Amino acid sequence: MGINSVAVVADLGESFGNYTIGDDAALLGLVTASNIACGFHAGDPRVMDATVAECVARGIELGAHPGYPDLVGFGRRLIEASEEEIRTDVIYQIGALDAFARIHGGKISHVAPHGRMGSIAQSDAKHARAITDAVAAYDPSYIVICQRGLLAAEAQKRGLAVGYVFLADRGYGDDGMPVPRSHEGGLIYDPELIGERSVQVVTEGTVRTVGGNVVPLGHDADVLLLHGDHPTVLANGTALRAALGDAGVRVTGLQDVLAEKAAAAVSH
Amino acid sequence: MGINSVAVVADLGESFGNYTIGDDAALLGLVTASNIACGFHAGDPRVMDATVAECVARGIELGAHPGYPDLVGFGRRLIEASEEEIRTDVIYQIGALDAFARIHGGKISHVAPHGRMGSIAQSDAKHARAITDAVAAYDPSYIVICQRGLLAAEAQKRGLAVGYVFLADRGYGDDGMPVPRSHEGGLIYDPELIGERSVQVVTEGTVRTVGGNVVPLGHDADVLLLHGDHPTVLANGTALRAALGDAGVRVTGLQDVLAEKAAAAVSH
Amino acid sequence: MGINSVAVVADLGESFGNYTIGDDAALLGLVTASNIACGFHAGDPRVMDATVAECVARGIELGAHPGYPDLVGFGRRLIEASEEEIRTDVIYQIGALDAFARIHGGKISHVAPHGRMGSIAQSDAKHARAITDAVAAYDPSYIVICQRGLLAAEAQKRGLAVGYVFLADRGYGDDGMPVPRSHEGGLIYDPELIGERSVQVVTEGTVRTVGGNVVPLGHDADVLLLHGDHPTVLANGTALRAALGDAGVRVTGLQDVLAEKAAAAVSH
Amino acid sequence: MGINSVAVVADLGESFGNYTIGDDAALLGLVTASNIACGFHAGDPRVMDATVAECVARGIELGAHPGYPDLVGFGRRLIEASEEEIRTDVIYQIGALDAFARIHGGKISHVAPHGRMGSIAQSDAKHARAITDAVAAYDPSYIVICQRGLLAAEAQKRGLAVGYVFLADRGYGDDGMPVPRSHEGGLIYDPELIGERSVQVVTEGTVRTVGGNVVPLGHDADVLLLHGDHPTVLANGTALRAALGDAGVRVTGLQDVLAEKAAAAVSH
Repeated sequence: MGINSVAVVADLGESFGNYTIGDDAALLGLVTASNIACGFHAGDPRVMDATVAECVARGIELGAHPGYPDLVGFGRRLIEASEEEIRTDVIYQIGALDAFARIHGGKISHVAPHGRMGSIAQSDAKHARAITDAVAAYDPSYIVICQRGLLAAEAQKRGLAVGYVFLADRGYGDDGMPVPRSHEGGLIYDPELIGERSVQVVTEGTVRTVGGNVVPLGHDADVLLLHGDHPTVLANGTALRAALGDAGVRVTGLQDVLAEKAAAAVSH
Repeated sequence: MGINSVAVVADLGESFGNYTIGDDAALLGLVTASNIACGFHAGDPRVMDATVAECVARGIELGAHPGYPDLVGFGRRLIEASEEEIRTDVIYQIGALDAFARIHGGKISHVAPHGRMGSIAQSDAKHARAITDAVAAYDPSYIVICQRGLLAAEAQKRGLAVGYVFLADRGYGDDGMPVPRSHEGGLIYDPELIGERSVQVVTEGTVRTVGGNVVPLGHDADVLLLHGDHPTVLANGTALRAALGDAGVRVTGLQDVLAEKAAAAVSH
Repeated sequence: MGINSVAVVADLGESFGNYTIGDDAALLGLVTASNIACGFHAGDPRVMDATVAECVARGIELGAHPGYPDLVGFGRRLIEASEEEIRTDVIYQIGALDAFARIHGGKISHVAPHGRMGSIAQSDAKHARAITDAVAAYDPSYIVICQRGLLAAEAQKRGLAVGYVFLADRGYGDDGMPVPRSHEGGLIYDPELIGERSVQVVTEGTVRTVGGNVVPLGHDADVLLLHGDHPTVLANGTALRAALGDAGVRVTGLQDVLAEKAAAAVSH
Repeated sequence: MGINSVAVVADLGESFGNYTIGDDAALLGLVTASNIACGFHAGDPRVMDATVAECVARGIELGAHPGYPDLVGFGRRLIEASEEEIRTDVIYQIGALDAFARIHGGKISHVAPHGRMGSIAQSDAKHARAITDAVAAYDPSYIVICQRGLLAAEAQKRGLAVGYVFLADRGYGDDGMPVPRSHEGGLIYDPELIGERSVQVVTEGTVRTVGGNVVPLGHDADVLLLHGDHPTVLANGTALRAALGDAGVRVTGLQDVLAEKAAAAVSH
């Protein structure tokens, strides 16, 4: 039957200058793919250089994680930028990250817009077009990591592959979408539960919601996201990897997951 | 005998957001190569996008013009950055510009460090190493535009081609180097004189100094720089192009100039 | 009968580093009050210092013109900042400007939020509260310059004086509010007409709309704003001052206008 | 005879946006004075607001800690700014901090330039003049915290009080000045030793150097600085306070220390 593999990704390289955020050293041992900040909402050239070097050394897939030019807001505040501004900001950031991929002999495999830029792109056509125009113009072989919505639709319209993400440490609603962090059950603190949910979403395509129902996710779970700022991230990631292993799910890169899916689609 | 061709370059794309600097539209009609700001000392993604598009459309060579991360100081103030900081800042900026080259079907041909980063690199080994390490790591086919000094030496040590620049609108001293702008004769306002000097430095390799002597430049004049913020830049550029034409000097891209020089060297 | 005086204000000090915007030298000869950028959307400490010095020397009222921290967007893009972020950003900017007022022996008289922060505050309660909380906490003697709407209402709720502004060079709709710049008639290019409208709004309280109707402005016209980026700003300002003079309207500071209004209210 | 009181200060409020640096909560329990970052090298309006509020609530003296406009470099890299740039940058930052002092009912008592701006001002006349010009213009009652050198001299020339600082957790050389952090013994990790040294410098005016000599400090020790990024800062501060208490040294605000010193000078 179906796909039995999944990628694991985390946002990395969000430190800046003298400021450190996240336990990247630990996360690097848990993921198969990275979303690397590109200097607008977080990250700086030294952090990008070191993060890319480490990912290339470990065979972790490189992803660009562009955000709004808003360091003080960490890219979490909507900026009503024009389509042209979003498009060129994303191209700039992809190119900057790609420079470090290039000097370390790596290659970017995917783009995952950060924070508010990413979340608004699920429902705002201007953002969805701008981001996917940027990716398609820069390198149409890049995968766009997102949830279902306009961003996924615009990506597919441009022939870009979509890697659907499941937020492993977040509660979901009956619509198959994550509920806000502030919502009761919005953040899941039990590592065992995180592992169990991850196996379920990969193998069965369903998720138990914050209201207790079991609903279909509504899209594939190609890649599981661990939030680095989650208080129990290391325990979460360790439990997630163990649970996937126990369930016989292959944890691999996102390109590999999508290739397997494509092959399976052809064979049917 | 000698080389009878030269490139003409200007700093372009230094506007930012709502702020405009320079008459790029006019300069684009006069140059064969561009030094394009990369967003640190000047420029932003929209300006970079538009400037690259225009250069590609006109067949003007694309050059990265990286500077210190100091917009308020326009990159003209020394920052005692570490070698690592300079190297990674330059890589980041080259990659960001290259993204726009890529989406417009162009290719960067050279790198010219901006302002104080460029001038200090003539005499500071740390800067010279950092900049040339960045260029060599990113793309060893790129030409480094500079005057003679440590930057040129470190470039050659890494196998990078050097495009020697002559500042067409600036006065020179007896050492064959430009005198400060504030110096008597530091800025030349007579377009005819600028044209005449340019022909002389290309065809004879000499320059008349602010003191009235005629001295050898001490290095080739592969590319003539017009400063966009010079009050008479358009008249200067027009006179320069006319004088070169009258003298039978071929005005072409810098890659072409260096290729011709290389061919001439082989044939001797 | 009514008030027969008005202030004239313009946004000043919006240059930044090596970048110049606006003809401040000319505007300074036309205004009685200033809205001075505070370094977030425009302006820098040198520009602020020089602009305040000039205003103090000429007896022009000093106004803080705080905006979003978005230089590349010139403060014209909505940022979905929290109430706390807006409040503290405004306090910071007022304090920074006040430092220059203090060293030059001047005193800030008013605050006029810039760009999108100012326009959204007319209808967004969060912005209106944040801005007026900032002003009231810093100095409750400051006047808030705005149009009618939530910002005016929240200012009055906190006991702050409101200086109602009429955009002298902009077209108005039947609701007594300016129509967008892009709207037919949104920008007025005829200096005579600008002068004539200004006299009418001050002396009669009415405005001829883009649709040709004469409607009440709906609030006082305490201060007339000239946009420094309007292509005919100098002619506009000159015509405006001449027309007001011819009509016997006294052009004075905003504090003076409001004091006269207060005295008139008491005497009735 | 002499003065038997001292202040204790630490750099505070250096967090930024989503980034946290330093254990301010703990340091606030150990100090009598604060050096608060002003948004250029560190800090943001929310951090400034909260830090000032906390200091005012606890009766901790408020100090402005202006730095270079270099967040990514944390103000630790020399910027060859002009005297005018330094002066106006410092005025801007003092005013911004003072805004928060004002809304919380506090008052700035001192200015301590941060990082490289502070260290270079000991030997660079341009920096020393610019900083003290800024302070004298803004409020001549402010104390300048520094070591001996040009900054102290220029402060005194302008009639500003100087609060001489001893770096309690750093090793000193035979010249009575701290040796670099990287130097053997440059950072002191033994809390007991830090307490002991602090008592000695306050009561005897001498310091045991990294070479083992006991030398005069060469200036008063009005205020002891604890570095928040020192790995043992809490133990250091606790030991320091205990040792001062045991030795009968009164730990108080810097204004108080200088007032006592002034009174003692008069009575002699």
